[in-house]
Amino acid sequence: MGKPFMDKDFLLSSDTARQLYHDHAAQMPIIDYHCHIDPREIYEDKVFNDLTEIWLGGDHYKWRAMRSNGVAEAYITGASTTPYEKFERWAATMPKMIGNPLYHWTHLELQRYFGIHEPLTPDTCRAIWDKGNEQLKGMSARSIIARSGVKAICTTDDPADDLRWHKLIAQDASFACRVLPAFRPDKALNIDKPGFKEYLARLGEAAGLSIDSLSGLKEALRLRLDYFVSLGCPASDHGLDYMMFEQGDADAILRKALRGEALSRAEADAFKTEVMTYLAGLYRERGVVMQLHYGAVRNNNPGAMAALGPDTGFDAIWGAPDSGAKLGALLGHMEQAGGLPKTIIYSLNPGDNAQIGSIIGCFQRPEHPGWVQHGSAWWFNDTKTGMIEQITSLANFSVLGNFIGMLTDSRSFLSYTRHEYFRRILCELIGTWVDNGEYPRDMALLGRMVEDISYNNTAAYFGLSQEVIHGAS
Amino acid sequence: MGKPFMDKDFLLSSDTARQLYHDHAAQMPIIDYHCHIDPREIYEDKVFNDLTEIWLGGDHYKWRAMRSNGVAEAYITGASTTPYEKFERWAATMPKMIGNPLYHWTHLELQRYFGIHEPLTPDTCRAIWDKGNEQLKGMSARSIIARSGVKAICTTDDPADDLRWHKLIAQDASFACRVLPAFRPDKALNIDKPGFKEYLARLGEAAGLSIDSLSGLKEALRLRLDYFVSLGCPASDHGLDYMMFEQGDADAILRKALRGEALSRAEADAFKTEVMTYLAGLYRERGVVMQLHYGAVRNNNPGAMAALGPDTGFDAIWGAPDSGAKLGALLGHMEQAGGLPKTIIYSLNPGDNAQIGSIIGCFQRPEHPGWVQHGSAWWFNDTKTGMIEQITSLANFSVLGNFIGMLTDSRSFLSYTRHEYFRRILCELIGTWVDNGEYPRDMALLGRMVEDISYNNTAAYFGLSQEVIHGAS
Amino acid sequence: MGKPFMDKDFLLSSDTARQLYHDHAAQMPIIDYHCHIDPREIYEDKVFNDLTEIWLGGDHYKWRAMRSNGVAEAYITGASTTPYEKFERWAATMPKMIGNPLYHWTHLELQRYFGIHEPLTPDTCRAIWDKGNEQLKGMSARSIIARSGVKAICTTDDPADDLRWHKLIAQDASFACRVLPAFRPDKALNIDKPGFKEYLARLGEAAGLSIDSLSGLKEALRLRLDYFVSLGCPASDHGLDYMMFEQGDADAILRKALRGEALSRAEADAFKTEVMTYLAGLYRERGVVMQLHYGAVRNNNPGAMAALGPDTGFDAIWGAPDSGAKLGALLGHMEQAGGLPKTIIYSLNPGDNAQIGSIIGCFQRPEHPGWVQHGSAWWFNDTKTGMIEQITSLANFSVLGNFIGMLTDSRSFLSYTRHEYFRRILCELIGTWVDNGEYPRDMALLGRMVEDISYNNTAAYFGLSQEVIHGAS
Repeated sequence: MGKPFMDKDFLLSSDTARQLYHDHAAQMPIIDYHCHIDPREIYEDKVFNDLTEIWLGGDHYKWRAMRSNGVAEAYITGASTTPYEKFERWAATMPKMIGNPLYHWTHLELQRYFGIHEPLTPDTCRAIWDKGNEQLKGMSARSIIARSGVKAICTTDDPADDLRWHKLIAQDASFACRVLPAFRPDKALNIDKPGFKEYLARLGEAAGLSIDSLSGLKEALRLRLDYFVSLGCPASDHGLDYMMFEQGDADAILRKALRGEALSRAEADAFKTEVMTYLAGLYRERGVVMQLHYGAVRNNNPGAMAALGPDTGFDAIWGAPDSGAKLGALLGHMEQAGGLPKTIIYSLNPGDNAQIGSIIGCFQRPEHPGWVQHGSAWWFNDTKTGMIEQITSLANFSVLGNFIGMLTDSRSFLSYTRHEYFRRILCELIGTWVDNGEYPRDMALLGRMVEDISYNNTAAYFGLSQEVIHGAS
Repeated sequence: MGKPFMDKDFLLSSDTARQLYHDHAAQMPIIDYHCHIDPREIYEDKVFNDLTEIWLGGDHYKWRAMRSNGVAEAYITGASTTPYEKFERWAATMPKMIGNPLYHWTHLELQRYFGIHEPLTPDTCRAIWDKGNEQLKGMSARSIIARSGVKAICTTDDPADDLRWHKLIAQDASFACRVLPAFRPDKALNIDKPGFKEYLARLGEAAGLSIDSLSGLKEALRLRLDYFVSLGCPASDHGLDYMMFEQGDADAILRKALRGEALSRAEADAFKTEVMTYLAGLYRERGVVMQLHYGAVRNNNPGAMAALGPDTGFDAIWGAPDSGAKLGALLGHMEQAGGLPKTIIYSLNPGDNAQIGSIIGCFQRPEHPGWVQHGSAWWFNDTKTGMIEQITSLANFSVLGNFIGMLTDSRSFLSYTRHEYFRRILCELIGTWVDNGEYPRDMALLGRMVEDISYNNTAAYFGLSQEVIHGAS
Repeated sequence: MGKPFMDKDFLLSSDTARQLYHDHAAQMPIIDYHCHIDPREIYEDKVFNDLTEIWLGGDHYKWRAMRSNGVAEAYITGASTTPYEKFERWAATMPKMIGNPLYHWTHLELQRYFGIHEPLTPDTCRAIWDKGNEQLKGMSARSIIARSGVKAICTTDDPADDLRWHKLIAQDASFACRVLPAFRPDKALNIDKPGFKEYLARLGEAAGLSIDSLSGLKEALRLRLDYFVSLGCPASDHGLDYMMFEQGDADAILRKALRGEALSRAEADAFKTEVMTYLAGLYRERGVVMQLHYGAVRNNNPGAMAALGPDTGFDAIWGAPDSGAKLGALLGHMEQAGGLPKTIIYSLNPGDNAQIGSIIGCFQRPEHPGWVQHGSAWWFNDTKTGMIEQITSLANFSVLGNFIGMLTDSRSFLSYTRHEYFRRILCELIGTWVDNGEYPRDMALLGRMVEDISYNNTAAYFGLSQEVIHGAS
């Protein structure tokens, strides 16, 4: 017979899983500790004209899917087509996306935010457009965040950013959710990419000094990090093409780059190793979590890059050789130098799960359970199978009960249902293990574990709450 | 209780899956767009003496399995043993091959072509030999193709080939199946392998010119491709050890090779990059599909290579470092140069699935849905688990509804049941998703999707039919 | 409803699986052909003071898990804490380890050796400590081995070892289990690691000659191997960081190293290639099985290495680039040189499963079915999912019926339940295939296959028994 399409027990196939989800996971608030939302839109409490703006605007996941269905760029990012014409193309793509996470995300968002339970198809397109846009009138950035149960959001911010919107939000007592900056100094690391020199000028300006040496760069980063920390910054983030570990004279390499001379890959890697290690020490001293993201090869399509710029859906997974060994060497070096901060490791290559699972076990510390974490399935892997694989790998290699769980990594205000998606998958997996006799049926213990992975571990890891929250008893 | 052994509902565990398979997938004809069948055998309508000739002759999958069971070479490829002695060794190997695709292929072939439903074992060996050989008397290459519902076959042909058998088949109005050449210019690319210079002489002869420069090589390839296209060639195929992307003076490199001087790997890669890019432009102009196969390390056993030659069962999977990033760079370069043709990408390493799934999304075009495809699970991965992984990966990363589905890649006329194997697995997977509430139970839509992946998408992609075919309604 | 926690049908979900396990697999004795037990402890019939000594002493799997739960080193390896304090920390870690193999190993060991069926938690910690220690009074190394049904054990021994404990055990007629040495010459290969020169002096002393050239090293290794073989050594073992294949003047490289000069990686690899190839020829002549383990990156945490030394839980999985292609080249070279011995290949990277499955098929020999084996899921992969993946991969790529199955790789006398864990998983997998109609329900044939993989194949492969053992009929 089968289950109905995405009903309240979506992805939950047993009483055990249903009880864990409904009585525990679903009761927990959300800490979205890594996303790409613009804090200005939160401060200004942005409202949206239509489903296309809130749903397709800036969402390169959906753009990529539409392109894969043969939709012309004019109907994706083009200015010459109407919002409804774009929405129609998305609706026409949807039915072909069986098995894709976008299929589930789309319908979770239609259900939770718009009360729409029909599948999106060319036949239902107009009715969903009308009903969704009607609903949208009562919604805004803040109202969506509030009804989603979000207690804290970490945005992703450049060290040179003045964080004015974060300050303004913090001053606004009417909004309960904390909106905190995360420190993302990629541009200060990317000595081998265009615009590095110009960026250092901008960073120096923000820090109030001139950067012409390694010590100047370190000082500027330290000053900006302290500024971020003064505004509650609990985490940093690094987007690395691949993991590197090289040693060399980073000051000489930086001066060479500032003179406009070309660097070898080993030189660039040695510079990054040195600056990363310095930053790790700062993070450790300040209790800032370090996130390492690697394994993406970006902007593969030169024509699309020229026409649309970065972050428009033309990135891919890099099977970077030797990243695992380099990661171990870099973390070991950091631990020896200034001490490893709390660290979360994400690779875009799902084939790295086992490597990461084994490496995190080499660097744990007694200050906090799960000091080094294997981050939740990232980006392309944020699928049902990708999440099952990451959770299973983490359980195999480490201590699942200490996992800090999900984040959205999203640019959209409607993405909080990804936490729901994750929690359903987590409860289903645990329920299956229990029903298979692989773990005792101690529902109180299991319920707490699910609550911890959904919320409490995250809050404790980022120091965002003293309060431990429990679901139904 | 369990299901009976390989009955009509083999691999189909739910009503949903059974309905999708029997009413839709099983009704579809076959386009076998990639195989290694000899067109002469089709033209001459080859008949077979016995099961050993049609089944074990040239099938290095089975040879490898027999060797793994300790069978001596004399009973595999040797001339001193009888066909029945070889068949006995195969029958003795069979029961130990639980979980292997050869176990299923063997019994699907026994069922569909010989009406034999007993498992092949030492006990049933003689009876199956006798009954099979009796059945074989009424069979020939063409009759097998016809009863398998094959509408078109693409063979694999060298650019220097005169395609005489394709021409003769095309002239024979009595045979309905189209037999088309596919352009496989590997030997013109393999500047780093023995015999390159001799091959260029042969290619020049076929093209009616002398190849002593890059422009000469390009002209020869263009002339031969046009000849292939004039005979209906819808596809090309490239077998690459690994994906490469290097830039250099390909003309100088070619002249160096023709002088007999050794090339560096970077030089060979630069030559291949240049010629591949040129060919991609030709394919694009002519509407020829480009297939890229990579990740095999061939002829690992030097003694066996000396005794038996290539393609005898001594190849393996190469975990070639960095192929993913190189693939993205090469496709981007082609897109910038002459424009990327319709492209199908296959890696022999199943760990590359996610990389490929993410890369194809960077190069889609509006001319046809699914312009760049992730090819069906290839060679060693053509297993139940390998196909589930490829289909699931494709669904996660792209738009499954546009998939062009299965091919045999086979040297045997009995391999069309691999399409059945694929279709059963596809229907089971989709049925599971629907029964799990992950997709609406719209059987008309699902039935059409299964029909499209089984046949209609393929026909449209290769331009082989205007006619869309549907199953039971 | 679900199954009870780890009852007699743990991991067995069908009648087919239960019958295969209870009537066949569970009836088989054990050959533990690869472990790290100290033969002296067997000879002296070691007794244990408490659960902490027998369970947590030397077990870096458990140490790593405790560290991941934030336990301070003092409570793991420290001398200042009591055995019970350590046990308490282990009990507190346990409930968070849902999905981890240690959870299952721990409870299998509590059930089988101590008759304890409660889950280990902080609540049950004291009672289990008391009851377990009480039980432990009647136990010793030999009694555990005997009640576990172990017929033969291969330890892991340095070529310079005098094997005195093996000789003493062999002379003791009161102990039925054979305890045989395995030849592990890693230190003679590791020309690029500290202590190489000193080790050669020690090896020369053991062999009664002075090693100052390649021929001297070869002679010493040959003499020691012959000594090992004279004491029944059936297997060798090599722990390689990555697979290498280089050619060079190994004698000159060795002399260079002995002069204290630094070697390039290519030089070290060429030396190892030469010595490995020489040893493979010796193994072949003597009928000694060669085990190749690769893909570990060791001692990642420099501080922990300084404090605790190697093998204390700070190793990880290396995604070593190109190991697959190098492995094929090395085996091909060995086959050409002195002939490949029976060989078992293990990679620590589960992403190498498919590569290994395809490579072993290139080097099979008719002297014994399954001449080259894909070793059982190793170390970090020795999990339910890791074993399912290894068995499924082996079935896909090779002939599962010839598999030699499980080993403990353990330093603990309580680890024989890992064979039970493996056998349950094997029977469940086969039962699922049969119940799904993928293999005929021939229970006699299936029972024999399970018995063979559990014991008979292993005995025959290592030449350890002429006697084939069967379970219930």
